[in-house]
Amino acid sequence: MSSAALYSDDRGLNYGDGLFETVRVSAGRAPLWSRHRDRLALGAQRLGIPFPASLVDSQFAAQMSKADQAVIKLVLTRGRGGRGYSAPKQTQPTLLVQQHPLRLPALQHCQDGISVGICDIRLASQPVLAGIKHLNRLEQVMARRQVDQAGWDEGLLLGGNGEPLELTAMNLFARFGEQLWTPDLGLAGVAGVMRSYLIDQLAPEMGLSVRVASGTLSQLRNADELFACNSVAGILPVRKLALWNWPVGDLTRALQGRVSQMFSGG
Amino acid sequence: MSSAALYSDDRGLNYGDGLFETVRVSAGRAPLWSRHRDRLALGAQRLGIPFPASLVDSQFAAQMSKADQAVIKLVLTRGRGGRGYSAPKQTQPTLLVQQHPLRLPALQHCQDGISVGICDIRLASQPVLAGIKHLNRLEQVMARRQVDQAGWDEGLLLGGNGEPLELTAMNLFARFGEQLWTPDLGLAGVAGVMRSYLIDQLAPEMGLSVRVASGTLSQLRNADELFACNSVAGILPVRKLALWNWPVGDLTRALQGRVSQMFSGG
Repeated sequence: MSSAALYSDDRGLNYGDGLFETVRVSAGRAPLWSRHRDRLALGAQRLGIPFPASLVDSQFAAQMSKADQAVIKLVLTRGRGGRGYSAPKQTQPTLLVQQHPLRLPALQHCQDGISVGICDIRLASQPVLAGIKHLNRLEQVMARRQVDQAGWDEGLLLGGNGEPLELTAMNLFARFGEQLWTPDLGLAGVAGVMRSYLIDQLAPEMGLSVRVASGTLSQLRNADELFACNSVAGILPVRKLALWNWPVGDLTRALQGRVSQMFSGG
Repeated sequence: MSSAALYSDDRGLNYGDGLFETVRVSAGRAPLWSRHRDRLALGAQRLGIPFPASLVDSQFAAQMSKADQAVIKLVLTRGRGGRGYSAPKQTQPTLLVQQHPLRLPALQHCQDGISVGICDIRLASQPVLAGIKHLNRLEQVMARRQVDQAGWDEGLLLGGNGEPLELTAMNLFARFGEQLWTPDLGLAGVAGVMRSYLIDQLAPEMGLSVRVASGTLSQLRNADELFACNSVAGILPVRKLALWNWPVGDLTRALQGRVSQMFSGG
């Protein structure tokens, strides 16, 4: 793991004024990189941070040249600044690129699925910041503390009206008959890169439609299959949510196969 | 300004997983320090960060010995950590102590008051994080961008129901007859140290009661006086909010005098 130094007056530290991406590299390739890059650029636009495209591309390429199996983490902040919420006009964005070991989920979680509890903390509604992967992640940190203390594999985060939104570090999908469903993240949550890959590439390729909409917890109970995903772990079946249980579904298995194929270069 | 280095794997940077305080030092004294320290300890308790009391005290004392007129900024984070929202069990909190020049508000703002616009972004309701001065400050950063672009002196942040909560870096008070009012911050906002000094020390000393409650924007219009405060700038009259104007009130002037006296050691 890299442990480069950062100035203590960086706005990333002082206000969480920035964004991040964690990119899986397998067999020397990062097949979802362009989606990560797009989300980073979108986040920068939303926050009003000038997107240093050529720096991002060159730093990522340099890190890739040293990676075979790894997670490359990019942190982009608004840069250094004085004291106060106003950003200096002349500030330059800070880009940190770190390489971490690729730690995949336990085989048992891939095969048999994960057990998910329901977190007490609710995700606050903030449409200005929803969807992007910014550095203000205390809600997820607090939720994950509960997951660890309770001994769950993951935790479901609900919104202010009790609607399911996402897991602490994964997005949630359910199959109802022939249709996939995933929560709308217009008010809260991180719109994951694997989620977008499923919605606009993999599902259509498999002849499936995905409904992106707000739902309720009680609707979830009637799902035929439930799974979670992110761009590092891939797809994990959800075998248990709160007190409800599911067998691992055929579609989940098929999607896992396609994602493995993508990461292995197939 | 100090620009000490920080490790890039610090959770303060990666998740905003920490807290801060900015302490005004005047004439070699920091009269509100114990309130800052209390809020920092409360925030640490809320986030589940072990509060390094003796380190905070000794580092603050060391910085004070070099300060006459200054702002001492403390940043306390959960410490270094791997990738992922779970904190390592063995992590040690990081404490950064920086000294900044004390920049007081323009004399004109102290005398004639400030003009405050209403920010578009609403503060999201998150009771778990409300009140404490944590490092997830993107809402304030976004609000301050609008303040700067619009040329206002400050911006009023409303909650999800349109209720006034605070300014981007100051708390808000209004006088209605013999009573002071300030918004309840149980769902969002930073419970400022100057706000608490006013509520439980200065107002009682002056025979005033303070009502801490949720209110509406239209109620504010009927206020007899309006002022803003924080622990560095002290008290500033609000002469204009949106399209409404107020003269500088006698109580505001009296409170300004008392706060100046406190900072000058009187």
